Amino acid sequence: MELATFVDRLDEELRTDDYADLDASANGLQVGPDEGEVEHVAFAVDGVRATFERAVEADADALVTHHGLSWGGFDRVTGRTYDRIEPLLSNDLALYVSHLPLDGHQELGNAAGVADVLDLEDRAPFGELGPEYIGQRGTAVEPDTVDGLRERLQSGLETGGRPVRVLEFGPDEIEEVAIVTGSGTDWLAEAEAVGADALITGEGKQKAYHEAREAGIHVFLAGHYATETFGVRALQDLVEGWGLETSYFEEPTGL
Amino acid sequence: MELATFVDRLDEELRTDDYADLDASANGLQVGPDEGEVEHVAFAVDGVRATFERAVEADADALVTHHGLSWGGFDRVTGRTYDRIEPLLSNDLALYVSHLPLDGHQELGNAAGVADVLDLEDRAPFGELGPEYIGQRGTAVEPDTVDGLRERLQSGLETGGRPVRVLEFGPDEIEEVAIVTGSGTDWLAEAEAVGADALITGEGKQKAYHEAREAGIHVFLAGHYATETFGVRALQDLVEGWGLETSYFEEPTGL
Amino acid sequence: MELATFVDRLDEELRTDDYADLDASANGLQVGPDEGEVEHVAFAVDGVRATFERAVEADADALVTHHGLSWGGFDRVTGRTYDRIEPLLSNDLALYVSHLPLDGHQELGNAAGVADVLDLEDRAPFGELGPEYIGQRGTAVEPDTVDGLRERLQSGLETGGRPVRVLEFGPDEIEEVAIVTGSGTDWLAEAEAVGADALITGEGKQKAYHEAREAGIHVFLAGHYATETFGVRALQDLVEGWGLETSYFEEPTGL
Amino acid sequence: MELATFVDRLDEELRTDDYADLDASANGLQVGPDEGEVEHVAFAVDGVRATFERAVEADADALVTHHGLSWGGFDRVTGRTYDRIEPLLSNDLALYVSHLPLDGHQELGNAAGVADVLDLEDRAPFGELGPEYIGQRGTAVEPDTVDGLRERLQSGLETGGRPVRVLEFGPDEIEEVAIVTGSGTDWLAEAEAVGADALITGEGKQKAYHEAREAGIHVFLAGHYATETFGVRALQDLVEGWGLETSYFEEPTGL
Amino acid sequence: MELATFVDRLDEELRTDDYADLDASANGLQVGPDEGEVEHVAFAVDGVRATFERAVEADADALVTHHGLSWGGFDRVTGRTYDRIEPLLSNDLALYVSHLPLDGHQELGNAAGVADVLDLEDRAPFGELGPEYIGQRGTAVEPDTVDGLRERLQSGLETGGRPVRVLEFGPDEIEEVAIVTGSGTDWLAEAEAVGADALITGEGKQKAYHEAREAGIHVFLAGHYATETFGVRALQDLVEGWGLETSYFEEPTGL
Amino acid sequence: MELATFVDRLDEELRTDDYADLDASANGLQVGPDEGEVEHVAFAVDGVRATFERAVEADADALVTHHGLSWGGFDRVTGRTYDRIEPLLSNDLALYVSHLPLDGHQELGNAAGVADVLDLEDRAPFGELGPEYIGQRGTAVEPDTVDGLRERLQSGLETGGRPVRVLEFGPDEIEEVAIVTGSGTDWLAEAEAVGADALITGEGKQKAYHEAREAGIHVFLAGHYATETFGVRALQDLVEGWGLETSYFEEPTGL
Repeated sequence: MELATFVDRLDEELRTDDYADLDASANGLQVGPDEGEVEHVAFAVDGVRATFERAVEADADALVTHHGLSWGGFDRVTGRTYDRIEPLLSNDLALYVSHLPLDGHQELGNAAGVADVLDLEDRAPFGELGPEYIGQRGTAVEPDTVDGLRERLQSGLETGGRPVRVLEFGPDEIEEVAIVTGSGTDWLAEAEAVGADALITGEGKQKAYHEAREAGIHVFLAGHYATETFGVRALQDLVEGWGLETSYFEEPTGL
Repeated sequence: MELATFVDRLDEELRTDDYADLDASANGLQVGPDEGEVEHVAFAVDGVRATFERAVEADADALVTHHGLSWGGFDRVTGRTYDRIEPLLSNDLALYVSHLPLDGHQELGNAAGVADVLDLEDRAPFGELGPEYIGQRGTAVEPDTVDGLRERLQSGLETGGRPVRVLEFGPDEIEEVAIVTGSGTDWLAEAEAVGADALITGEGKQKAYHEAREAGIHVFLAGHYATETFGVRALQDLVEGWGLETSYFEEPTGL
Repeated sequence: MELATFVDRLDEELRTDDYADLDASANGLQVGPDEGEVEHVAFAVDGVRATFERAVEADADALVTHHGLSWGGFDRVTGRTYDRIEPLLSNDLALYVSHLPLDGHQELGNAAGVADVLDLEDRAPFGELGPEYIGQRGTAVEPDTVDGLRERLQSGLETGGRPVRVLEFGPDEIEEVAIVTGSGTDWLAEAEAVGADALITGEGKQKAYHEAREAGIHVFLAGHYATETFGVRALQDLVEGWGLETSYFEEPTGL
Repeated sequence: MELATFVDRLDEELRTDDYADLDASANGLQVGPDEGEVEHVAFAVDGVRATFERAVEADADALVTHHGLSWGGFDRVTGRTYDRIEPLLSNDLALYVSHLPLDGHQELGNAAGVADVLDLEDRAPFGELGPEYIGQRGTAVEPDTVDGLRERLQSGLETGGRPVRVLEFGPDEIEEVAIVTGSGTDWLAEAEAVGADALITGEGKQKAYHEAREAGIHVFLAGHYATETFGVRALQDLVEGWGLETSYFEEPTGL
Repeated sequence: MELATFVDRLDEELRTDDYADLDASANGLQVGPDEGEVEHVAFAVDGVRATFERAVEADADALVTHHGLSWGGFDRVTGRTYDRIEPLLSNDLALYVSHLPLDGHQELGNAAGVADVLDLEDRAPFGELGPEYIGQRGTAVEPDTVDGLRERLQSGLETGGRPVRVLEFGPDEIEEVAIVTGSGTDWLAEAEAVGADALITGEGKQKAYHEAREAGIHVFLAGHYATETFGVRALQDLVEGWGLETSYFEEPTGL
Repeated sequence: MELATFVDRLDEELRTDDYADLDASANGLQVGPDEGEVEHVAFAVDGVRATFERAVEADADALVTHHGLSWGGFDRVTGRTYDRIEPLLSNDLALYVSHLPLDGHQELGNAAGVADVLDLEDRAPFGELGPEYIGQRGTAVEPDTVDGLRERLQSGLETGGRPVRVLEFGPDEIEEVAIVTGSGTDWLAEAEAVGADALITGEGKQKAYHEAREAGIHVFLAGHYATETFGVRALQDLVEGWGLETSYFEEPTGL
């Protein structure tokens, strides 16, 4: 498949353009030439030196990641930026990135993946960011306890053994669940406003503790990495369906 | 002591004005009247409903915290802001906040407190933010291992049992240590530039993992709360020296 | 009635959200908790210490004013802001503010009230501010003189004896009248463009004198306070119709 | 005298450059050619069509005013701007403007002129605007009453019969007086901070009423025009001392 | 014809308002009174002292130019601005300017005029600027060579003998031609994207050389002035059709 | 020599940091790793694919250019940016850029080089840009004519046969000469203010024609490329003096 065709297909599926003004990440093709062929596509959560090197070793033509290397652009290709870009250009490896578009995709996205693990029903977009959403919410088929929910996350996510932490300030029975993967505690007020019993996210800022306490809501901190493997894995399935060879590289951070 | 005198003394000691343009937190007197007396001063890391209520119960006249309730100001006194401000005004409790000025104070500050725990020598300001610093660095009296350093932090900080985590990417022997308390992984590049073997901070963003890995530096994540108790405790000693009654309220977040 | 219901009804009637980006005033509920009951509602033009104290004495649950205390937000609750907010929070008195939405309401608003006093016909929105209007214009049933119009304003407005001043630069007969209450001389050019013979407003900046002179238009300065009592009085009628007890507190400024 | 020399002398005396970033008014030569001679200089408070025409009739070469016609610049020379600029260019009349520099000049300025009328002693700059001042304060030789001060202003200023109004909220005896001419009620807080008993200004915004009341300070509203004749008259004396013919045109606005 | 009518007709034809936020030039009536009659209209590419003087000599009532004298507005009428505006105001000569609206007009505009010279077919808007276009593209009736195209431009444009320069980096046969008059090399990437063989413009920045070389596209530099005479000449025809007397003043710059 | 040492030496000589906020170009090391050795340094005016390829062929370790590839930064490494960066990274070629610092250097810079060609005396910095200068001015040893000056430029610069053009609007005898290389006609007003008879620059915008005409000053347009070869050649000499091998690649643009 031509690289340009590959990029266009992903951009269309993920609505890359709609998130252009909302995201510091330069989504879409982030590093790569105008022309080229793609036969083997690698996937990983983070676009960093470690995953770039594994993709090069695997002889991939393109790497698709959730986190890329351009956040707000760069003035120079020096230091760490040089070290990251160099293996891409020296080995003809294109980098395709999808950050918020992949968080918010209601079927292939990260939050949708967590909702799948929990079998949530009556799903709706959650996590407003301007005119778009970057998460999802839904209702548990049966009310669950904190321990029950924690165990399901612990077993259903790639936590690498890292314990799921909970700020336990909500009700005993959890029915309404809101999800923003990664670093999502800024959406606590929205979770409260929609009547969520629990907010599930990856990592939590210090100030979230008291906000959750005062809002009377549980916050599950399941790991930034662990909550964000679903999107790229779903893209891998999609791309495999296009007849391309694929690989997936785990590099859990434990964060 | 008059409240105005109390505020002036703290502002001078902490150089509140010098951080005015650098900090989203409105430092200094954040809530309080122009006139009033201070006899009993309470101290806590976070200025939230829980600590406000404990200070009211203790019949304190003023509460000094590291984190306050005004971050970039507010348009309204409604919702959570109402719930937090109401006990202050209904009970004549003044709120004095010192965020970055207290992080960066080279003797009373949070980073200085962590450096004390580790007996660092040859200390220097670290953690550039515009023309100021918000951390400290120094040299270990004797080179230490990751495990050694971790244990000293675990026992010397109010971690509340939360394990100190380490991203182990640095050298076997740790001599040069840089500290930015709270959320300090944005200073990894500066730590690398000054030749630090380890950066000690509270909480770490997901992207810090690979940055530390590529920089070849250890990152100790000892807890946001746990690394930020030193400053307010040092202020408590200072204020006690002024002849005022004091209290300290622990409300560890585990984050 | 629940406070939240009370706030929602007013916000809907006044289209508070539509003016959100146009007004430095934080319109809607400016100070108050999420929960609470409203039985007695007080009304006043200015939300200041004097009216707050009168509302507290009257044991009101909410005070509705045209001018509030949050103009562009605040960083601290200290000094005059403290003195104003303190009686509200110490006495469970909610503050609801409607500034430009109330100026521009074509039936309940301040300009509409002045137009009622003058029996204007063929009314239309006047006083463009972005996509909204904050005044009204209309045609006199019969042409009037400067003295005639002045007397009708003097007797129909709560001027407290303060004389209505006129910058007399328009035609002998006045038919077309434009109104922006409060401080409205910035709309002189629009008044000229729509063919108004006179602009009625509250107070006038120095530079309005020569602008009116060069435009050949009368400017009636009837007092900022005096032109802005209509809106809150109309809201009082509205709220009374909801079955709530009401009070109105006059505190004329003479400005 | 060459026009360029005339402009340079005034700019130096008034420190025009120091106010460049503080003032919406384009101070200095506002309309005029690079070359030309000045023999007869006219003076007026406002640079408007009326004073431009009088200066043309008087055959002046330059007109010096406190208020000019460029506030924040203009994109076009049409409408009122055309009508004002046209007589200047058609009659070789240069326009020199000094707004805030003339307000703040501690000897020739408007506030200094009001302080002269009141025989204030121990004068100091007042009315902070960035690094500069635009007013003056001082101490009465003997304490005065509100009525006494009002009468001295009424007789000493060119009020054109307009009564000096007072918001009477200060002490019975007035000793410390702060002055910002024109529209100066934004400096009420500074007046309070320096311990002034009264603030003297020209015109007052509606919100000044309650601010003065809560601050416990008198505010004298002596007229925008009436408080701003001193500066241009002092410049007239200065320029006469340079051997040039001068005129002064009164156009009181009563505002 | 009334000046106001004349201005309204041109504004409507040229859609002046639609370009208001895109253009540093203040388009429409740039200098002129609200009232006046227009009988004789002069036309020129540049609104400068030379053309203003010729229009005054010809006793024109209005001058229509592509480049005016207000680019981003001005704070003062001094120096060169004074020298340019003075003859306009002293001689009742109105100045009407149309910069980008005239570049982009798909029938009367500058690019359309160049396309006419080259007999292009299948024309479409080219040269995106926000939501508008400022150029045109089309297909040659028959493929042409660089020399052929250069000769047609040399003979069809008012180059004043200045040779048309070509950066020859495109194909031997030229079919698809994109045009942005004046200084248009910033649209090289768009020309490449739409498959143009050549971009025709007036003047080229230094960096265009290598961009054209790397894009493999011819760039014809036919002169800024020479490519921008079509618009004003087309407006002259239009205005003549309204029954007004017209003149055209050539002042070629050779640039 | 270590690359880092090489970069530090150039940055110090050229005062790169002082121009950081003035220049859209990212000056200093623009592409390159933290570590590496430099033995062979290539020089060229433009940092483009053509010169990158020649430097690769010559097996250079670093290329020093006046124009680089980062103007305001980039979000992605795709399209033309990819094509330019790829040969640098694939071949370990570092890119060092000095734009305005090299224009303004009073001894090694581009304007200084033009001044050398013309034997100007009493040189002074010219071409104000914030607190820095980007050109130079001086006095001819003997007054010269337009033709004399043109010939000296034609023979002394690398014009590649491109004729030096002159906008002849100045005096017959030229003594005072101001120089801003590249695109410098924005400094015409400064040239007039310092009494220059001629401004020498590379390329001229269309509007410069009438500005020069109205200012009565000659403008020599000697070519953007032709006026900007001096700086990199002077750096080549400097670097050769450090004992490194050097090359220079001519790629004249004729613009």
